[in-house]
Amino acid sequence: MLFAGDQKVEHLNNDFYGEGIPKDAANPEHFFEIASKAKIGVFATQLGLIARYGMDYKNVPYLVKINSKTNLVKTSQADPFSNLWYDVDQVVKFKESSGLKILGVGYTVYLGSEFEAEMLMQAVQVVYNAHQHGMVSVLWLYPRGIAVIDEKDPHLIAGATGVGACLGTDFAKVNYPEKEGVNSAEVFKEAIKAAGRTKVVCAGGASDEVDDFLKKLHDQIHISGALGRATGRNIYQKPLDEAIRMCNAIYAVTIEDVTVEEALKFKK
Amino acid sequence: MLFAGDQKVEHLNNDFYGEGIPKDAANPEHFFEIASKAKIGVFATQLGLIARYGMDYKNVPYLVKINSKTNLVKTSQADPFSNLWYDVDQVVKFKESSGLKILGVGYTVYLGSEFEAEMLMQAVQVVYNAHQHGMVSVLWLYPRGIAVIDEKDPHLIAGATGVGACLGTDFAKVNYPEKEGVNSAEVFKEAIKAAGRTKVVCAGGASDEVDDFLKKLHDQIHISGALGRATGRNIYQKPLDEAIRMCNAIYAVTIEDVTVEEALKFKK
Amino acid sequence: MLFAGDQKVEHLNNDFYGEGIPKDAANPEHFFEIASKAKIGVFATQLGLIARYGMDYKNVPYLVKINSKTNLVKTSQADPFSNLWYDVDQVVKFKESSGLKILGVGYTVYLGSEFEAEMLMQAVQVVYNAHQHGMVSVLWLYPRGIAVIDEKDPHLIAGATGVGACLGTDFAKVNYPEKEGVNSAEVFKEAIKAAGRTKVVCAGGASDEVDDFLKKLHDQIHISGALGRATGRNIYQKPLDEAIRMCNAIYAVTIEDVTVEEALKFKK
Amino acid sequence: MLFAGDQKVEHLNNDFYGEGIPKDAANPEHFFEIASKAKIGVFATQLGLIARYGMDYKNVPYLVKINSKTNLVKTSQADPFSNLWYDVDQVVKFKESSGLKILGVGYTVYLGSEFEAEMLMQAVQVVYNAHQHGMVSVLWLYPRGIAVIDEKDPHLIAGATGVGACLGTDFAKVNYPEKEGVNSAEVFKEAIKAAGRTKVVCAGGASDEVDDFLKKLHDQIHISGALGRATGRNIYQKPLDEAIRMCNAIYAVTIEDVTVEEALKFKK
Amino acid sequence: MLFAGDQKVEHLNNDFYGEGIPKDAANPEHFFEIASKAKIGVFATQLGLIARYGMDYKNVPYLVKINSKTNLVKTSQADPFSNLWYDVDQVVKFKESSGLKILGVGYTVYLGSEFEAEMLMQAVQVVYNAHQHGMVSVLWLYPRGIAVIDEKDPHLIAGATGVGACLGTDFAKVNYPEKEGVNSAEVFKEAIKAAGRTKVVCAGGASDEVDDFLKKLHDQIHISGALGRATGRNIYQKPLDEAIRMCNAIYAVTIEDVTVEEALKFKK
Repeated sequence: MLFAGDQKVEHLNNDFYGEGIPKDAANPEHFFEIASKAKIGVFATQLGLIARYGMDYKNVPYLVKINSKTNLVKTSQADPFSNLWYDVDQVVKFKESSGLKILGVGYTVYLGSEFEAEMLMQAVQVVYNAHQHGMVSVLWLYPRGIAVIDEKDPHLIAGATGVGACLGTDFAKVNYPEKEGVNSAEVFKEAIKAAGRTKVVCAGGASDEVDDFLKKLHDQIHISGALGRATGRNIYQKPLDEAIRMCNAIYAVTIEDVTVEEALKFKK
Repeated sequence: MLFAGDQKVEHLNNDFYGEGIPKDAANPEHFFEIASKAKIGVFATQLGLIARYGMDYKNVPYLVKINSKTNLVKTSQADPFSNLWYDVDQVVKFKESSGLKILGVGYTVYLGSEFEAEMLMQAVQVVYNAHQHGMVSVLWLYPRGIAVIDEKDPHLIAGATGVGACLGTDFAKVNYPEKEGVNSAEVFKEAIKAAGRTKVVCAGGASDEVDDFLKKLHDQIHISGALGRATGRNIYQKPLDEAIRMCNAIYAVTIEDVTVEEALKFKK
Repeated sequence: MLFAGDQKVEHLNNDFYGEGIPKDAANPEHFFEIASKAKIGVFATQLGLIARYGMDYKNVPYLVKINSKTNLVKTSQADPFSNLWYDVDQVVKFKESSGLKILGVGYTVYLGSEFEAEMLMQAVQVVYNAHQHGMVSVLWLYPRGIAVIDEKDPHLIAGATGVGACLGTDFAKVNYPEKEGVNSAEVFKEAIKAAGRTKVVCAGGASDEVDDFLKKLHDQIHISGALGRATGRNIYQKPLDEAIRMCNAIYAVTIEDVTVEEALKFKK
Repeated sequence: MLFAGDQKVEHLNNDFYGEGIPKDAANPEHFFEIASKAKIGVFATQLGLIARYGMDYKNVPYLVKINSKTNLVKTSQADPFSNLWYDVDQVVKFKESSGLKILGVGYTVYLGSEFEAEMLMQAVQVVYNAHQHGMVSVLWLYPRGIAVIDEKDPHLIAGATGVGACLGTDFAKVNYPEKEGVNSAEVFKEAIKAAGRTKVVCAGGASDEVDDFLKKLHDQIHISGALGRATGRNIYQKPLDEAIRMCNAIYAVTIEDVTVEEALKFKK
Repeated sequence: MLFAGDQKVEHLNNDFYGEGIPKDAANPEHFFEIASKAKIGVFATQLGLIARYGMDYKNVPYLVKINSKTNLVKTSQADPFSNLWYDVDQVVKFKESSGLKILGVGYTVYLGSEFEAEMLMQAVQVVYNAHQHGMVSVLWLYPRGIAVIDEKDPHLIAGATGVGACLGTDFAKVNYPEKEGVNSAEVFKEAIKAAGRTKVVCAGGASDEVDDFLKKLHDQIHISGALGRATGRNIYQKPLDEAIRMCNAIYAVTIEDVTVEEALKFKK
């Protein structure tokens, strides 16, 4: 159960301010308040934020998102490249000096980008070095670039989880497949299979209705065989109290194995 | 209260010689005379200049602007890239051997440039290493490049300060937003909010009428919630004595919390 | 006798799921089950997979495929570049800490690609450093890029094996030549000659009829003078039991010097 | 008084062989014979030449020109990039092992080139490291590239010397400005002012009439305020004896503060 | 007297197999048999080949060709770049552990290529480091790229040897000039002069008639002032016995100062 909070770079301020977004979301501390009060597996965000808030939120289990890019340059202009910001040794050094619970590192690879070669190399280095230091690795594996026609194609997403396995990552985070005329939960099984011993986590996406969201999550776990889901906007685009309850509902479905109906009760 | 003096590279000699610019400005020593005699928070300039003049201006608090580019290649020709000139260790070594008061380092990131990936990486490294050595970091965060349509858009500027927070910087320097039909001081609040614990400083811009300048500064601090303003041309494009008084007026508004009216008296 | 299993990156999930592919192939563990139960020379795959499964398949002789790329960006879009993932020292460190039988490293060079210069440099470094650590090297040498008109041209393939010799590799893996009106086994002799003391191994290709496959392999060894063949899809695109028998048949022809007829009996 | 001798790379053999060029110039030793027999401040050339001739010309004060490019690729084809050949430590090591009088290092920056970012970084590193080792730095600062419309514009040249100051160089070598309707010696004052404590040296250019040459040099020093001039072709494109006398005349005007008339006598 | 054997990469298998090429040439060991039985100055080839055959040909004086590229990408597609394969320290390490007579290193620079900057830097590093370790350096200096109109222009070739001198190389290998209406041996003098203390060696070219070949060699040495010639195809595109005699004839003209007539006798 990964609480994803790297969007202040990835989406700039789009997720945090504007129509339908509660005021709480505007302040980055919102992330930390949720993460410290709700049940989560890990809170993923950039090291800079952790460095500014971590001392006041020491109970939070952190995952350092170690590369990021903004959304300003579109794929129609140039293929995406998200560059490594730190080497793992720097994260380890920070972990030791801060005493924070930094459990792992996360890195995004855009498969099919013209910069794929550089990102594959950085990704394996992140995984290798994280393991050397007893940390887990999560790879965000997204096919993207002018060579990629359908990012949600189930077979392509299975390719991505398979690459994750070859990169040696503990967890692969991929988009949930969508294809006309097929059941997503069913076809997603291919990706879970291809990943082998690498665990698969679904990327979140935009805010959904809570019922639909939990239903889909339950399917991903119980039909497809995914480990769970990384959730961002569906959590932090809610006022604090509601966000915490949402987190706990997701946690209940993912970790405590409750039904959607029970989880929905939990939420209220 | 940041006295910005990196324009000899960024604008070549345009700010220092020509119509309406006093003779004093032509000599780089003008920077140092002002900085040593006026009340300032920090004087930001390239290490090369500090190395040539610092021994005669030991009382000045310095901030090393650690990357710079000229204005010759326009965005219409190629997206901007401002390359790291030194690593932070070299700055530290210089600081120790010179005994100067070097309080921090500054770095410019052009968000949305095709070279964003490289600059984000250099920026986090500058911040991380500055903090390792007990120095503060200031990031100049400017959306720029063919992907950027409106550099002064309030929402985009809030995105930039949010990126600054994720990069872990102490201070983010951004343009003051401008948008038809909205009050800049009001909409700028979004950016202050998005920055969280990272302090926001407004970039200066071309020379203004003194009254307007101080009014705007006062609004930025007291309406928007900015920490202050980085000022260059509004200071150094004045004869020495006038420049010093201008500095002190800015200092009074920024640090000593006086009203614009009081500050204007101070100035004379 | 090289069992090639790097296709989860190179071909994504295309080889592992779909019409005519048995269910066993969908799970990466299929590779390891075959490799541990059949007679093979070496099993070549990415380090990430070895790290996840090796502890349960300790008897397998491994070769680390040290660079890889996906098939998403086509040569019509950009010339191929397959980037080094690890330096050899990291492989050695893993070998020592895991205790696995890692016998060597493999690297792909696309000759004639606009990135040839970078790959030639990485390749010689891989070979040099592998030898420093007592490991063997295998180079996949494929002419590819917009400058390459006919990848299967016998003379060009002989050029590739000659380059392999100059790179100092122990083994060169190349495509089996194909040319209208000539006998492949005969013209392939040029490549074996050009390689000198470097041993030549044929790349596998798509699944063939078993009889044809073994006949071709026998020709490559006994007519052309190749050392053997790297086989992937012809093995793993079979259910486990069949795959093991296929492996053993290949092994018999390659290492135990049996005739095709005998090998075919073996297979049943 | 800098005797510039890096043109065997910069201009290939154009300056050394052909109509109107004396035979002496064809041999690189000509440089050294002049430098050892005439009064000069420093002789600037590539380390390779110094390594081949220095042992026979131990009295010469050398400046290592540490980057260079040929003139084959024109700006219309690609913007200029002159790459660092050595790091300063290598120059220092050579200096120590050879015992030669290597006083400093020189580096060319093409401001406004698309490779400006790389050259600015190399330049500051050269300056920083030269100073660490007690050597002086000279930067050749030339605006050049498709973004540069008029390389001889006085205001642009003042920008270049200002950049030199920010790079921390001891000496900035720039072109002498030329602009229709203005007096070069007068407008050049802007550049001297902009350089502050960095000393300005004029680049030489093609061979001139001796009288004109010395008159211009005298103006540069006594009207504009330049430190002197870097001279190459006006010296070495003369037979040895004449070259020595020319050097001495330049030296007399530059260092011994004689009039042009006196210097012209000296010359004969 | 340099026996050039780097063509298995540079020309792929074109020089070693086909019409008019004897069978001996097909096997890379042909190089070593010639080099060990004939009188040569040095045999230049890639380290990979030396590593595979050197232990059986310990008497051969070797020169490691330290960069190479194939001929697949033509200049019309992209300017040439030949990348450094090893650093000199690796060659030295190999030399020490193998006990072979490795006398020096060779590196090709394509002057006028858009990659000239990178190759000039690699070349000076190769020369500098070779000299640090007591090895000689040979630079192949070829003007090539879309900016180069006539690679055989005498004045341009003189530019190339001059660059060689500035790079500090012991030997510069260049093409023999060709120009309508001029005598090559005569105009080549310009290049010898421009090289100063750097010795000039002529590149070989395709197979010639033996008489013409030796006549041209004699002219290069005795008219132009070259040190000798690098010869490849004119040697190895002969059966072993003939190749050895050819080598000895070349050696006789180059080192033992015999006439062409005497050398021709020698040959039979």
